[in-house]
Amino acid sequence: MTLNRREFLAAGAAAASGFVAAGLAEGGEAPAGRRQAVLRLSAQEGFVPGKSLEEKLAKLEKWGIEGLEPGGGIVGNEKHYLDALRNTKVKISAICWGSGGGALVSEDPARRGPAAEELKRVLSSAGELRSTGVIYVPAFNGQTKLSNQEIRKVLTDTLPALGEHALKAGTRLLLEPLNRGEAFFLRQVADAASIARDCKSEGVCVMGDFYHMYIEETSDMGAFISGGKWLHHVHLASRTRVLPGQDDRSFVDGFRGLKYIGYQDFCSFECGCRGDKEVEIPKAIAFLKKEWEQAKL
Amino acid sequence: MTLNRREFLAAGAAAASGFVAAGLAEGGEAPAGRRQAVLRLSAQEGFVPGKSLEEKLAKLEKWGIEGLEPGGGIVGNEKHYLDALRNTKVKISAICWGSGGGALVSEDPARRGPAAEELKRVLSSAGELRSTGVIYVPAFNGQTKLSNQEIRKVLTDTLPALGEHALKAGTRLLLEPLNRGEAFFLRQVADAASIARDCKSEGVCVMGDFYHMYIEETSDMGAFISGGKWLHHVHLASRTRVLPGQDDRSFVDGFRGLKYIGYQDFCSFECGCRGDKEVEIPKAIAFLKKEWEQAKL
Repeated sequence: MTLNRREFLAAGAAAASGFVAAGLAEGGEAPAGRRQAVLRLSAQEGFVPGKSLEEKLAKLEKWGIEGLEPGGGIVGNEKHYLDALRNTKVKISAICWGSGGGALVSEDPARRGPAAEELKRVLSSAGELRSTGVIYVPAFNGQTKLSNQEIRKVLTDTLPALGEHALKAGTRLLLEPLNRGEAFFLRQVADAASIARDCKSEGVCVMGDFYHMYIEETSDMGAFISGGKWLHHVHLASRTRVLPGQDDRSFVDGFRGLKYIGYQDFCSFECGCRGDKEVEIPKAIAFLKKEWEQAKL
Repeated sequence: MTLNRREFLAAGAAAASGFVAAGLAEGGEAPAGRRQAVLRLSAQEGFVPGKSLEEKLAKLEKWGIEGLEPGGGIVGNEKHYLDALRNTKVKISAICWGSGGGALVSEDPARRGPAAEELKRVLSSAGELRSTGVIYVPAFNGQTKLSNQEIRKVLTDTLPALGEHALKAGTRLLLEPLNRGEAFFLRQVADAASIARDCKSEGVCVMGDFYHMYIEETSDMGAFISGGKWLHHVHLASRTRVLPGQDDRSFVDGFRGLKYIGYQDFCSFECGCRGDKEVEIPKAIAFLKKEWEQAKL
């Protein structure tokens, strides 16, 4: 995210080719030459009311939610999703995969190869669905005996090849920082972004989750700015992990960070709900739109 | 750094009491209600040319450098410093202490008590010199057998009392993140800030060093925004750890972060110098002032 001369020039060229180039002095929301950020909502498949995928997609479209986030069950079921997507404007956002038992960073090197192959299959499938990326947690607490430093080394050795596989498939691997109670190894967006940078593959990127960030980050804005060009997905949940607006968690500072980096990807509900989803989800959407408007740089 | 309602109100009150309240829309450099940041330079004592403390202070004053950063040798020598400071406008910035052999986070609990007492003495001495804080590295690589998670636990158990001691003395403890080659445990400003936040003592704060940040941070601006209210010292060094301007390292993005948080503390040279200091230090100062001006939010 350091704006060196080359990046400034690239941003300038992008602006000339049709991107919004709103300078702050003119009251715009992104630095000159940076893309104007967008709030594109998504929801996890299991969270959306509906008996079938078609019903869920219809519900999302009715609410103006543009993305659906399935789980790892997409593998072998690509046609099921592609068929359903044909009759809707909704796109696949990210694929919520997980850690695969932490096998990729296991203390037993023999477990790592098969884990990489499994992840490749999910990445291929995610590419078919034109997903922005596959969410990957290196290890939940207890899933590996390696130290933080050793896990990091395995990742920077292993992920570049997976990143290149992802790029060829048309998607990305997305490192997800969690809170310490779930995964001590990776707790902050800046740390995830530094791993992604060290992997030197554009296919290795990161995401941020407002629920975990409330516990681990001192600044949502700082975290997302550190995520920068590596940030390609965001999870939405309140402090108590229910819908945004259902407790006192503010999203304004984080949205300020997304606006600063000109964020173009999805913000996806990964949360519970207090009350009737049919009533509460539209309320959460209205709440988020208001928070987005309030996020001035 | 989340701008919740209470902080906004507090910032508003501060503005009313005389702080600069420049809104971005008016072309100002800090969000409405935030203090206007200042570039106050400092240099480490050993780096400043001169045969005596008095000669060094005279040199700093001539160059317009406002701060001097001594090492841990201040303990027992407070009078030496206080006497010399009487005839100059230069103030003590931070005290560059170190890790004390990593004893405070040793795997041997018996070593921790004496380490805390030693640190308390440095904090008391730093308070006498009205220093902004004592720079503290939990452990250089190899100084403790504890895991990252265990070190963090020892720190959040131990530092609050040291922070309260620092506050009473009129100073702070400043956690310094280094690059992985020196200290894998603490590499990023956001991580240091999260430890400081968890300590719940205003006497436990953080600093950032442009040299280490080049290696470990994906965004200088994001890092400093995450440092936020906990950030109370900055080290200046280029990518190759010489004077700013002596290689291709840009300080603009970091200065943007300092401006965003309304930074009021010192930016202190901790670096080598290629060539004659009498010539190169004034050039570095001019370079930094230019970078500061270029840092627009």
